Amino acid sequence: MAEIKVAQSAGFCFGVKIAVDSAIGAGKKYGKAYTNGPIIHNKQVVQFLEKLNVKELQSYSQLQEGDTVLIRSHGVPPKTERMLQEKGVNIIDATCPFVKKVHEKVRQLVEEGYYVIIIGEEGHPEVIGILGHLEESGGKGIVVENMEDLIKKFPKRNKVGIVAQTTQNEEFFEEAVGYIASNVEELKVFNTICDATSVRQEEVKRLAKEVDLMIIIGGKHSGNTRRLAQISKAINPETYHVEKAEELEKKWFEGKERIGVSAGASTPDWIIKEVVQKIKEFTKDS
Amino acid sequence: MAEIKVAQSAGFCFGVKIAVDSAIGAGKKYGKAYTNGPIIHNKQVVQFLEKLNVKELQSYSQLQEGDTVLIRSHGVPPKTERMLQEKGVNIIDATCPFVKKVHEKVRQLVEEGYYVIIIGEEGHPEVIGILGHLEESGGKGIVVENMEDLIKKFPKRNKVGIVAQTTQNEEFFEEAVGYIASNVEELKVFNTICDATSVRQEEVKRLAKEVDLMIIIGGKHSGNTRRLAQISKAINPETYHVEKAEELEKKWFEGKERIGVSAGASTPDWIIKEVVQKIKEFTKDS
Repeated sequence: MAEIKVAQSAGFCFGVKIAVDSAIGAGKKYGKAYTNGPIIHNKQVVQFLEKLNVKELQSYSQLQEGDTVLIRSHGVPPKTERMLQEKGVNIIDATCPFVKKVHEKVRQLVEEGYYVIIIGEEGHPEVIGILGHLEESGGKGIVVENMEDLIKKFPKRNKVGIVAQTTQNEEFFEEAVGYIASNVEELKVFNTICDATSVRQEEVKRLAKEVDLMIIIGGKHSGNTRRLAQISKAINPETYHVEKAEELEKKWFEGKERIGVSAGASTPDWIIKEVVQKIKEFTKDS
Repeated sequence: MAEIKVAQSAGFCFGVKIAVDSAIGAGKKYGKAYTNGPIIHNKQVVQFLEKLNVKELQSYSQLQEGDTVLIRSHGVPPKTERMLQEKGVNIIDATCPFVKKVHEKVRQLVEEGYYVIIIGEEGHPEVIGILGHLEESGGKGIVVENMEDLIKKFPKRNKVGIVAQTTQNEEFFEEAVGYIASNVEELKVFNTICDATSVRQEEVKRLAKEVDLMIIIGGKHSGNTRRLAQISKAINPETYHVEKAEELEKKWFEGKERIGVSAGASTPDWIIKEVVQKIKEFTKDS
């Protein structure tokens, strides 16, 4: 049988894994639960959760005392959490630990007297949550999305603190921090960008070199999965991008001894397992 | 008589002014003094100081008890100051207050547990002084001169503090801070770049718009003075760059009512005064 190496960073990031596992757990335990918005943009996962009676909440007003609601990875402003507590609902907090870190750092910056610049997307649920924590701690600050935005909104402050949305693009972060540093006297930066994407790509680069063939799993329309497949193919031309186990072809594996597997950020573990199982079948005689 | 507007930021920066005034004062008071290196690269000033018996020190070993030594704007490491105290020399500390601020900020960063990156020129007297304060406070750090240097020396640290040499170029500062921010978890930056040059340029831009004619004073080979003249000329074509009063020509001032004057960073006040006096003579009948 061929040797199959599955990338440790394949599939869901840490935060999404926690949220999906919590949603499944809530469905099984309570027989019914709501999530405050879509947990993940993956059809199979959404269908699976619906079977467990875990559904996306349309409005907080539909909640009744005793209902279970799961706060997804993005987190919420403290006042939303209080509102849920007042309604007497059962809260499952699946806020990503890295997002919680941003909330904590914003509070620290405010305590230390910094005006806060949040590098992120205005209106994004994660950013709304971060702004909620800024407001709650009595701080002042702004959100900036791009350089033009930053220059236009630039505050007349000498002491500025920075945090970033966890999925922020590093290039803009670098440029913004540099610009801010040269226009204030004191700057404190917490680099709260999560490195799940770059870690996943780096691991694929290493893996693609070591194996005879690479399988990348994930939606054909998923940007991060396609990118992963491109990176792999550039290093190892024997790279195939599949959405599910049924797409694998036995002939790909003929004479191959070492097979590498990775998956995009929205690919659940069970799909990865099905693919690995199929590869084992195809290579059991080799 | 024409109206003559002299830019407030004309000539010596704050730090150099203090050092030159202190050197003149020391020469007059003690009849003899040393400076730990050249105070300024201006022939007239150096000649004037030599007349007052204020000379550049060739080596600390030539100092004898009771000698007067002036520490110039750049500052020195604490151990050099202690060595001078032990020799029993009379110390006049003309370290630029903005450079002292850098020393203070380095100590603060070390106390707060940061590894320090000094953005500046390795071996520059100011940087040697800053490094001395870093060492004295028990801190660790490096000096980086350019991006290549930064990438090569990049420390494996999560908590990094930054200060800059006061005359650091802003472009590299911005790029370096951005790069560092995206490669560490926590970053504290004190923007210690002195804005004397940009303030001088901004004032010339305003002044050139308001007057009929601009006179820029300073060495023909002085980079910052030439730049000042270029900026002025772009706004007001009636701009003349002179080194001293004797170069002024009466015809330039015919029919001119408002005259602006500024000067490069190494132009002493007395030369500016001589130029203003000459302009007054030329325009007294107009």
